[in-house]
Amino acid sequence: MPRYKLILEYDGSAFVGWQRQMNGPSVQAAVEEAISRFAGHPVTVIGAGRTDAGVHAAGQVAHVDLNRPWSMATIRGATNFHLKPAAVAVLAVAEAGSTFHARFSASARVYCYRILNRAAPPVLDRGRVWWLPKPLDTDVMAAAARLLVGRHDFSAFRAALCQARSPVKTLDALAVIRVGDEIWLEARARSFLHNQVRIIAGTLREVGEGRVVPERVATALASGRRDLAGPTAPAAGLCLMEVRYPRPDGEPASVEPAGDRADDQAHDDIEDDDADRHEA
Amino acid sequence: MPRYKLILEYDGSAFVGWQRQMNGPSVQAAVEEAISRFAGHPVTVIGAGRTDAGVHAAGQVAHVDLNRPWSMATIRGATNFHLKPAAVAVLAVAEAGSTFHARFSASARVYCYRILNRAAPPVLDRGRVWWLPKPLDTDVMAAAARLLVGRHDFSAFRAALCQARSPVKTLDALAVIRVGDEIWLEARARSFLHNQVRIIAGTLREVGEGRVVPERVATALASGRRDLAGPTAPAAGLCLMEVRYPRPDGEPASVEPAGDRADDQAHDDIEDDDADRHEA
Repeated sequence: MPRYKLILEYDGSAFVGWQRQMNGPSVQAAVEEAISRFAGHPVTVIGAGRTDAGVHAAGQVAHVDLNRPWSMATIRGATNFHLKPAAVAVLAVAEAGSTFHARFSASARVYCYRILNRAAPPVLDRGRVWWLPKPLDTDVMAAAARLLVGRHDFSAFRAALCQARSPVKTLDALAVIRVGDEIWLEARARSFLHNQVRIIAGTLREVGEGRVVPERVATALASGRRDLAGPTAPAAGLCLMEVRYPRPDGEPASVEPAGDRADDQAHDDIEDDDADRHEA
Repeated sequence: MPRYKLILEYDGSAFVGWQRQMNGPSVQAAVEEAISRFAGHPVTVIGAGRTDAGVHAAGQVAHVDLNRPWSMATIRGATNFHLKPAAVAVLAVAEAGSTFHARFSASARVYCYRILNRAAPPVLDRGRVWWLPKPLDTDVMAAAARLLVGRHDFSAFRAALCQARSPVKTLDALAVIRVGDEIWLEARARSFLHNQVRIIAGTLREVGEGRVVPERVATALASGRRDLAGPTAPAAGLCLMEVRYPRPDGEPASVEPAGDRADDQAHDDIEDDDADRHEA
């Protein structure tokens, strides 16, 4: 059973989310269906990030086991052929070792939350950005963002229905970048809690509009109270940009040398394995 | 009758083109309708670039005369309110002198043609790019592009139905830029012939795929024969990015000091005035 790593792009507005569900089309089901059509047998596709309904991906990673070897160009071409006209495509395919796991081997996930900060509503980027016409101060947003970076109990930035065993996560980076009329929030972590990035976006918006001071974010974080953080920002602004793996052969991250960080990752592995159903 | 300059963004796939037509919704008609609703009288909106069906704009410029002064924020907000849910928005409004003319005062128009050059079809940028899966050599495309820059008879790069009086245009710049999986063709000129940028894109594609040598572009240009240039690239890849004006107060470009360049512009003014109905 050769294993393949896939890189996927999709428009989340067409799906109920990554994960197979009863209530509508999922990205996972669309990709599984397309692959099984050319492979000739049922397949299971495991994704690195279980994105919610409306959340996009420019670099989702998944893995799949096939009954026999295929060329990587064939897997990509045949899957994309059968995916049409679904709003998802396989960008790249690579052979992966049998121990590679798209979800558990990942050492980092990079999400970008796009805010369109101008008076006029979005047209060309409709459905891809959160439109906030009131001018935002990116300096205070960046100051608030710095307070969130690091290993924290993110209970205040976690959806009520989040099933992660532990609210403790390590946010490795959170950049606030102005790009023309847009503000990009780029968040990187090994894994995220459900709605974590969207609650961070909703909170930084309140800081940027001057409604709360940056220090209030530290207060919310320390309190662990969801009601002290901002509201959850809309799904449309969020995009899974990239998933990183510690080793080219895709050995699980948990085989890294012991230490605080490795402990954290090993813990996350268990947590992901048992309970996490969504993230970001 | 105060005159206002508008900067517009639109998704061309929703329209039959900029110009008011009998056969479907035009950007011009949508904007005129929205403005007249709040202004309370019929208006005529004149655009700088008469983009074709399917061609997008991130920075189209237009002007409109209103019966009485309004604040610029009101014009923008009220027009955008009445434009919903049309795929067009007013990004900015400025007061313009009575001699400002969006079309005739323009000193430069900047178009970007986006090619998605990867094996997988577009998903997030569907309808915004021309998908060409075969790898393109941007070095030879850039070499061919350089042969087109300058003042030339562009008859070979002109739609059969182009109504411009003269096929002589000055292409001020034509850059070939690789941006990740994309290739951007950035073209700048005072004005363009109908389909000029799209025929240039279709021609450079053949060069980039190695089907013709760059010098063949010079041969086509010199011949003036449409059949020696490449096919017209799809509208979806084209976007009007920016329109420039020589003076902040918007005096017509033709009042610039005399000389070759000014002569050219004065000529273009007449040509535009009489005949050009489309461009790029």
